[in-house]
Amino acid sequence: MSKAPWQFTASEALQAFSKDDLTVEDYAKSLLKRIEERDDAVKAWAYLSPDQVLEQARALDKIPKAQRGPLHGVAVGVKDVIYTKGMPTQHNSPIYKDDQPEVDAASVIMLRHAGALLLGKTTTTTFAANTVGTKTANAHHPNRTPGGSSSGSGAAVADFQVPLALGTQTGGSVIRPASFNGIYGFKPTWNAISREGQKIYSLDFDTLGYYARSIEDLELLSDVFGLKDDEPPTSIGNGVKGLKFAFFKTPQWSHAGPNLKKAFEDGKTQLQEAGAQVEEIDAPPGFENLAKWHTCVLYSEGRVNFRPLYQTAKHLLPQDLVEHVEEKHGYTRKDSLEAFDGIASWRPKWDAIAEKYDAVVVPSVPDEAPEGLGHTGSAVFNAVWTALHVPVVNIPGFKGEHAMPVGLSLTTPRYRDLALLNVAREVASVWVR
Amino acid sequence: MSKAPWQFTASEALQAFSKDDLTVEDYAKSLLKRIEERDDAVKAWAYLSPDQVLEQARALDKIPKAQRGPLHGVAVGVKDVIYTKGMPTQHNSPIYKDDQPEVDAASVIMLRHAGALLLGKTTTTTFAANTVGTKTANAHHPNRTPGGSSSGSGAAVADFQVPLALGTQTGGSVIRPASFNGIYGFKPTWNAISREGQKIYSLDFDTLGYYARSIEDLELLSDVFGLKDDEPPTSIGNGVKGLKFAFFKTPQWSHAGPNLKKAFEDGKTQLQEAGAQVEEIDAPPGFENLAKWHTCVLYSEGRVNFRPLYQTAKHLLPQDLVEHVEEKHGYTRKDSLEAFDGIASWRPKWDAIAEKYDAVVVPSVPDEAPEGLGHTGSAVFNAVWTALHVPVVNIPGFKGEHAMPVGLSLTTPRYRDLALLNVAREVASVWVR
Repeated sequence: MSKAPWQFTASEALQAFSKDDLTVEDYAKSLLKRIEERDDAVKAWAYLSPDQVLEQARALDKIPKAQRGPLHGVAVGVKDVIYTKGMPTQHNSPIYKDDQPEVDAASVIMLRHAGALLLGKTTTTTFAANTVGTKTANAHHPNRTPGGSSSGSGAAVADFQVPLALGTQTGGSVIRPASFNGIYGFKPTWNAISREGQKIYSLDFDTLGYYARSIEDLELLSDVFGLKDDEPPTSIGNGVKGLKFAFFKTPQWSHAGPNLKKAFEDGKTQLQEAGAQVEEIDAPPGFENLAKWHTCVLYSEGRVNFRPLYQTAKHLLPQDLVEHVEEKHGYTRKDSLEAFDGIASWRPKWDAIAEKYDAVVVPSVPDEAPEGLGHTGSAVFNAVWTALHVPVVNIPGFKGEHAMPVGLSLTTPRYRDLALLNVAREVASVWVR
Repeated sequence: MSKAPWQFTASEALQAFSKDDLTVEDYAKSLLKRIEERDDAVKAWAYLSPDQVLEQARALDKIPKAQRGPLHGVAVGVKDVIYTKGMPTQHNSPIYKDDQPEVDAASVIMLRHAGALLLGKTTTTTFAANTVGTKTANAHHPNRTPGGSSSGSGAAVADFQVPLALGTQTGGSVIRPASFNGIYGFKPTWNAISREGQKIYSLDFDTLGYYARSIEDLELLSDVFGLKDDEPPTSIGNGVKGLKFAFFKTPQWSHAGPNLKKAFEDGKTQLQEAGAQVEEIDAPPGFENLAKWHTCVLYSEGRVNFRPLYQTAKHLLPQDLVEHVEEKHGYTRKDSLEAFDGIASWRPKWDAIAEKYDAVVVPSVPDEAPEGLGHTGSAVFNAVWTALHVPVVNIPGFKGEHAMPVGLSLTTPRYRDLALLNVAREVASVWVR
């Protein structure tokens, strides 16, 4: 039996449009029906107007083939900390209830230009800046968290409500939901894509990322956003045979639960069996400082960036953000400079280590998605990579003891975004079956 | 004869309001009359609605004294790359003609919260990202540039059209107009004030700054924006006597014109005669790389941040920004990482050098404001300090051979913003007479 349109990856939808097998309108209707059926269980959307979606879809159908963009008609969900014309941007905060400044974020301008169908806004933890759960459930279990802060984007893509969605990562907000929901999630090199029009938590760390159900779709979106390496990645075509991987448990390994431990070992064995060179590496001396430096910079920047809202609407700000502004953390300016400079000094050092491998494999999450929707889980395995500005992709493929997804992350030096996706495709062919 | 309200510094206006010597409405009328008289010559405003200003002023007058903010009624101009509710934000680009997304930048939220009277939007070079002149003239000469990119803010404050104005600096866009127009201009430590709601050219360099006609007013605004050092600056009260200054010609000294050379020598002599310890320092080895690294990072970030507009409105973008996106500069990703990491490695090294002095004195500009309005002059003496993230304040006080102002910059290590202003007050008492 052939797939229904809502099951299509972005690339499959594009193919169907180009062969005239499907109109954007019918595709949109199929997705909207899927959402209607599933929304009570997953609740991934902060805003979605079926009429607006269908209007967009009909307008896209009218565009002559020669003038269609590279993402013509493909549905995309947008995390609700990213500004969109024609849709509210509410940051999961009563301060911005129904707020709709008519401005498109840089990423949204590029999506529209590529012909994307903007489906709606996906849920986020408040200002993408804490770990208090949203209304959204994991796509695989109604009482497990989808992760955060990009909760709705991760769950919606995993639940086949949309093939692509935007997220943002400051700690682990792209990779964690990808792992918990069993999909691909990609955080490109920091500052390789404009972050204009996203709420700011930390200038140094906030990074646009995105979700898909295939590496091919991540590549498609990367092209729309203009990602480019200095050297185009060479086609591999031989699986992982001969590729070289480092497995790095990281200084945070004491947080690893049984299902991460198993995935990590299985992932290693599977790559070895498929002909890859695999070695385990240890943390270089001093590397263990990065996690605490990330926290220090994060809190210091949170102090700066939430000050205006603290002044005007303190009673509506979550307590943890109030504490950022009130400097409850106790970090001095000197502390934050030491952390900022310390992280900066590690970026070229880490790149030099990572460039010896086709990719370094690191944990995505401590374990399966925890039970309950109140807390979005831990970013303990992600923060260091966010701080180092390196690209990271979550590859799904493992299952925990409760049959929930567990992913592993691949990372490379900065600005090897396309090379990373290229290697990720081969790794996925081993892990995802 | 007593001063007219339009001549007041912000602090003087506050005092008049608090003594009931003046209503905000009468103050606003005085400024609007000054603007009406002078606008044909200076043309500092991209947007200004007298009715809207008076309406704001009357609303401020109704606020009971006990509820007034620290900037109650004080007029502020806002550079037109900073988003403001109720006023268009046009970036000096036809792409954004009359565009008015209803969103306030972080700085504007804090200004409104403090009770400021938002007078209007001041002219900027296109997207604050090039050196093509605006309609605005220098406050002291109709055919000399006010500098850029914060052209209107610099000229309006110097011309007594507003006591305070916001600018932004990515190369030399705050300090240059301050020097050319003979006023105080302050670029605080990078990321010490939220930059949310400003157009992005470079995340690493873009910094909010501001203009005033006294150090006291810069301190007032710094307090509104929440600037704080780890240790509160100790009161000096003894002039510059015993203070220690380094005079640093920088590796860019070959660009110095005769009027800078004279100001530099005069500034040194005057401080010495007033009892300061002054020594001249040389560039530490390798410091000369910073300027070219700044250029490389700037162009690389310009590529990223102007890509959306390049895609949607290339024909309306200035040619130099088109070339950023088209990578005409030829910088690779590897080049930009070397530059980014190289600059980062210098920040703590430079701070360690600068902290031996109460301030390091460096040039603000090569010379007096050049003739003609077509080009806003050179940022050659500013870019390195922007890259190093250190606070910089321009002190006016010198005059060139054409009677045009020439200023000098004071700088300290990062996050000594208030200490810098504290020293600047004493230096100003020597230089500005």
